Amino acid sequence: MSMQAVPLAKAYRLLNHGPTVLVSAAADGRRNLMAAAWCMPLDFEPPKLLVVLDKATYTRELIERSGEFVINVPPRRMLDVTVAAGNRSGREGDKFVELGVAAEPSQRVAAPCVAGCIAWLECVLLPEAHNQSRYDLFIGEVVAARADERVFSDGRWHFGPQDDALRTLHHVAGGAFFAIGEELDG
Amino acid sequence: MSMQAVPLAKAYRLLNHGPTVLVSAAADGRRNLMAAAWCMPLDFEPPKLLVVLDKATYTRELIERSGEFVINVPPRRMLDVTVAAGNRSGREGDKFVELGVAAEPSQRVAAPCVAGCIAWLECVLLPEAHNQSRYDLFIGEVVAARADERVFSDGRWHFGPQDDALRTLHHVAGGAFFAIGEELDG
Repeated sequence: MSMQAVPLAKAYRLLNHGPTVLVSAAADGRRNLMAAAWCMPLDFEPPKLLVVLDKATYTRELIERSGEFVINVPPRRMLDVTVAAGNRSGREGDKFVELGVAAEPSQRVAAPCVAGCIAWLECVLLPEAHNQSRYDLFIGEVVAARADERVFSDGRWHFGPQDDALRTLHHVAGGAFFAIGEELDG
Repeated sequence: MSMQAVPLAKAYRLLNHGPTVLVSAAADGRRNLMAAAWCMPLDFEPPKLLVVLDKATYTRELIERSGEFVINVPPRRMLDVTVAAGNRSGREGDKFVELGVAAEPSQRVAAPCVAGCIAWLECVLLPEAHNQSRYDLFIGEVVAARADERVFSDGRWHFGPQDDALRTLHHVAGGAFFAIGEELDG
């Protein structure tokens, strides 16, 4: 198992470079996942994050009912799953089954983690009715974080030549993505 | 001049893939810029965006006084400027002069654009006192947008082999960045 705990004070670093994410949630025996490009850190410690969730999404409904969600960072080899997760609704069936992805248990919340992802940030919703209704904007406090030690350790992402399939995805629009590229030292 | 107008409905695409930005502002004859990794789109049309601005920053003070700011997307060749902009305060001197960057006039706001950047999003602050004081979270409505046509046209970023110095920057932590990488079609 290559998923290792990330100290909460360093959890923001999993999202700091702007990857596209999968949001997963569960309530009343149902579960779902969706893709989201609008997700970023909001605070260091306790770590908080922001995610924009359209009113039409079933995942949002599950989050509003359960007060919990997981932010999953999909790697390049999950590009097709990420595109498909953004293009269909989970209201009809079980999108985990339809997309052929497995759910992994979370440590602190009931929402499932998406197997194959390279980071998992388990979140408790911090309710802000005005932001949620006016801007579709949700705030989560990160209560547990894990990442794939092959590409994230000592608080840093590191993608070697052998890790191309594990690079993060960054959505531009309409199914056009970038993989994250070369490491630079400023 | 390679900066060309971007239709407002497509302005979100300048930030959708998660680049680190420079925030610039001016008030009462003073101006400043700072680096920010926590900036993302919030809505499509009219386009809105979010940016987190620490209470200690002088740029935040200028934004609160003027109600305007510009989000500038720096390219890889501005890595040193981006690091330096994040490491010193503009309260003492003129950070444009200290960093050796020129200011370009904006079209709709008084805040200056940062020369050499590959996208400029001119913003009017949408005041939300609770978000600003509790979360350091600011919402801007984008009122004008321009991008460098060498790397952004027809609503898409495109970085060819000759454009390596123009790739967007993505901060991880402590001066470690990635350049955006390979284009993928999902």
